[in-house]
Amino acid sequence: MSPLDQLMNILGKLPGLGPRSARRMVLHLLKRREGLMLPLVEALQNAAMNVKTCNICGNLGGSDPCEVCSDQRRDRSLICVVEDVADLWALERSHAFRGLYHVLGGTLSALEGIRPADLRIDQLLDRLRGGEVKEVILALNATVEGQTTAHYVAEKLEETGVSLSKLAHGLPVGGELDYLDDGTLTAALKARR
Amino acid sequence: MSPLDQLMNILGKLPGLGPRSARRMVLHLLKRREGLMLPLVEALQNAAMNVKTCNICGNLGGSDPCEVCSDQRRDRSLICVVEDVADLWALERSHAFRGLYHVLGGTLSALEGIRPADLRIDQLLDRLRGGEVKEVILALNATVEGQTTAHYVAEKLEETGVSLSKLAHGLPVGGELDYLDDGTLTAALKARR
Repeated sequence: MSPLDQLMNILGKLPGLGPRSARRMVLHLLKRREGLMLPLVEALQNAAMNVKTCNICGNLGGSDPCEVCSDQRRDRSLICVVEDVADLWALERSHAFRGLYHVLGGTLSALEGIRPADLRIDQLLDRLRGGEVKEVILALNATVEGQTTAHYVAEKLEETGVSLSKLAHGLPVGGELDYLDDGTLTAALKARR
Repeated sequence: MSPLDQLMNILGKLPGLGPRSARRMVLHLLKRREGLMLPLVEALQNAAMNVKTCNICGNLGGSDPCEVCSDQRRDRSLICVVEDVADLWALERSHAFRGLYHVLGGTLSALEGIRPADLRIDQLLDRLRGGEVKEVILALNATVEGQTTAHYVAEKLEETGVSLSKLAHGLPVGGELDYLDDGTLTAALKARR
């Protein structure tokens, strides 16, 4: 395979890229070899070598423990459980949460063969044994897989005695009723205050 | 800047990628360091070093002259002028053209300061001096810039005496009248056979 085809082939495997966008990207890069292509190579190598998975919460970052876990100003009595690192980052961007996190690393899925042992559930139980944590927030996606996983984790945590909560369902801020699905409308009505 | 931010920053500069898709891509890559991230680094380095611009037509590829220019089975009396390498590749994928190409490398644009000297027009005139070429097809995009450039190139080529043609306008094959713009409909009607 030519170096061009090889590169387009690999780029086409990235999420959200098809053959057409991979071609476009390759041409864009080859026109800017010094200014963009080589800096990209360096940034990829640097990230591949230096980005670490936090052994406590599962976050990705330049250090282990990660910036969140090692920040002494955060509320250590509160752990927010998320599916993926992307969800953790989304919560961090919102600045709405000042506790710690725990990344499960996916959701239970019989179809894809993901069992409880494949997720970081035991590590979560270990973290609760210290007794410092008072509340666990299950911030899993509102999908079937997310809710199944939340249910399983909730059962597992029952014996530890920490209080459990879930994210509220409802109308997105700035959202219009007309565009909402029935499930969200029903949930928003039930949880009215 | 952390290695993560650095990588997301550079990826976000690629065409079609914004901050969200760059984040998604970085997480996807970091989960597959051995299987995807390092092969991508290698493919990028390999392409940056080994992809050459053809000195005759301006195509990109593993050799100079490129595969098209050095293919002796192609019709050397016919040159198809395109704006960009992507257009050359699109024509090659269609298998509709068996002559040679000439990549201009852009379109004239007063706004972006692209003058005739910035395009490969002189190189095209040089190629026509041999006398082997009988016809030049102007396959520029049907945009204002493309058509302005086509007009300029056509004027320049007048003195050489080769016959000039342009791509036909009309209904795309498989296209529906109802979805076509007025300009295309008018052109398709005028050029009816």
